[in-house]
Amino acid sequence: MAEQIRIGIAGYGNLGRGVELAIKQNPDMRLDAIFTRRAPESIPSETKVYSIEDAERFVNDIDVMILCGGSATDLPEQGPAFARLFHTVDSFDTHARIPEYYEQVDAAAKASGKVSVISTGWDPGLFSLNRLLAESILPEGKEYTFWGKGVSQGHSDAIRRVTGVKHGVQYTIPSEAAVERVRGGENPELATREKHIRECYIAAEEGADQEAIAEEIKAMPNYFADYDTTVHFIDEATMKAEHGSMPHGGLVLRSGKTGVNSTQIIEFGLKLDSNPEFTASVLAAYARAAYKLAREGQAGAKTVFDIPFAYLSPKSGAELRKELL
Amino acid sequence: MAEQIRIGIAGYGNLGRGVELAIKQNPDMRLDAIFTRRAPESIPSETKVYSIEDAERFVNDIDVMILCGGSATDLPEQGPAFARLFHTVDSFDTHARIPEYYEQVDAAAKASGKVSVISTGWDPGLFSLNRLLAESILPEGKEYTFWGKGVSQGHSDAIRRVTGVKHGVQYTIPSEAAVERVRGGENPELATREKHIRECYIAAEEGADQEAIAEEIKAMPNYFADYDTTVHFIDEATMKAEHGSMPHGGLVLRSGKTGVNSTQIIEFGLKLDSNPEFTASVLAAYARAAYKLAREGQAGAKTVFDIPFAYLSPKSGAELRKELL
Repeated sequence: MAEQIRIGIAGYGNLGRGVELAIKQNPDMRLDAIFTRRAPESIPSETKVYSIEDAERFVNDIDVMILCGGSATDLPEQGPAFARLFHTVDSFDTHARIPEYYEQVDAAAKASGKVSVISTGWDPGLFSLNRLLAESILPEGKEYTFWGKGVSQGHSDAIRRVTGVKHGVQYTIPSEAAVERVRGGENPELATREKHIRECYIAAEEGADQEAIAEEIKAMPNYFADYDTTVHFIDEATMKAEHGSMPHGGLVLRSGKTGVNSTQIIEFGLKLDSNPEFTASVLAAYARAAYKLAREGQAGAKTVFDIPFAYLSPKSGAELRKELL
Repeated sequence: MAEQIRIGIAGYGNLGRGVELAIKQNPDMRLDAIFTRRAPESIPSETKVYSIEDAERFVNDIDVMILCGGSATDLPEQGPAFARLFHTVDSFDTHARIPEYYEQVDAAAKASGKVSVISTGWDPGLFSLNRLLAESILPEGKEYTFWGKGVSQGHSDAIRRVTGVKHGVQYTIPSEAAVERVRGGENPELATREKHIRECYIAAEEGADQEAIAEEIKAMPNYFADYDTTVHFIDEATMKAEHGSMPHGGLVLRSGKTGVNSTQIIEFGLKLDSNPEFTASVLAAYARAAYKLAREGQAGAKTVFDIPFAYLSPKSGAELRKELL
């Protein structure tokens, strides 16, 4: 076996655990250390766990640090900080703040001579790639992104704040009618309400007024008022049995015209049993890319747009041309 | 307007005409010349048309030559020959011969300091990209490619050779049942017969024995014997009205497992009214990439695997991060 890429994980929530599992599927990588803000001895993992404060001691032992913190508060700080020490990969996903985050990480990584791949995952990430590809091939056209069927944490949190709700899970679901109109080449203008529907599953407190709960949810501004929302009441056992996993997915469609009037449709879709495990698998592939870019002497922040797909694979260029082209 | 990329087209069949139309949708490029083996004055185009023998005189006037000849005999000769003179893009699609073709074009392009993007289009091309991406993210999984619904030229030619057939068109169609099994995460082993069905539309000679024609077609080894084939007899007017266009498309699916047992499905699909116009639009985007790579001082043969998507777009890195990531 050739030399393995030595991986570290910074942050050990759902995403970090997903990365740990993803690395096991890639024999050209090995996971050497997990870094956490919690007490290291409290982390149940077969990998060695250290305090995140000690990460700096590992600059010669870790090739690529995969940052598994959240985008709200962890990554804005950790992204630039780790880019000063390691090649990094992250899934920073606050779309509006990506340009600013890119600049900060780029400055840090260029100063340290490291490669930092930012904002990977599936959206931003694979969906972004498909938006760019489809727009470049079909400049005269219209792009549609649909999310789901999947759990939205923000909307689930919102329904849990309603009085009388004990447990709640909210699924975002693409409207099949809207998707079919796009696939049919209609290029429709779709209002917010037409693109997605929202489905809530609720275990209510005993004696709670279910009708009042449902009405309060459906009227909630920003979260539900602009959508067709259905509310289902279930018991706690059903909630546990049927709504405990984190499925997600979605579609990026572009419908364009070429020639005189030929309709051309490009569609990319994901159907994921586990959102964090899939995002983790994307991070692992881009960790390989970061390592390869670094070996070529590159430095600075990179996004999925800057990285040829060949860098994601352990195979050689000749193997790829022979087997996959 | 910034400087435009000066494009030439070598070969003016369906694909060449498609490229001519695609360039019109991309204001950062302009079509300066078409080169043909036919008599230039016989070509009905608003662009200047020259004999392909004269192409060498244009080395200082054309930035990227888009090679629109066929893979059987044109490109094996023209690919290396034009790579000695111009940056080139082609859609060489004989999968088994790609490694050899790559080596020949690479040697020519490296010697001349040119960039040659080979084997673009949708398969090879976009489908290959998706096979590579999905395999890199989901190493434990299974890949499925389905083609159609679309016209297969080889199969249409085969049915036209049957006695009594005046006109014939053959459509390759993915089996919906097979696609649904893959989407359902079953990871099925699919026999040839299970993946695609073949549908033939025939205008028969007057008095021809339709039953005999249908039987001969269905029994044809390699082409039809291994498939479920249906044969429809129609009149010539219907043939002209309903079967004159060149639709195509298909699906690349990968179904993989992450974590303990999460099924993750990645799907890429195309639904094309015009196969040659879409392939032409892909060639145009990769002509832009060839130009950008050349400006960076790169040389040699490249495939879609080697080229970051950012190079396909006229937008800057900052614009892409802001608008599409």
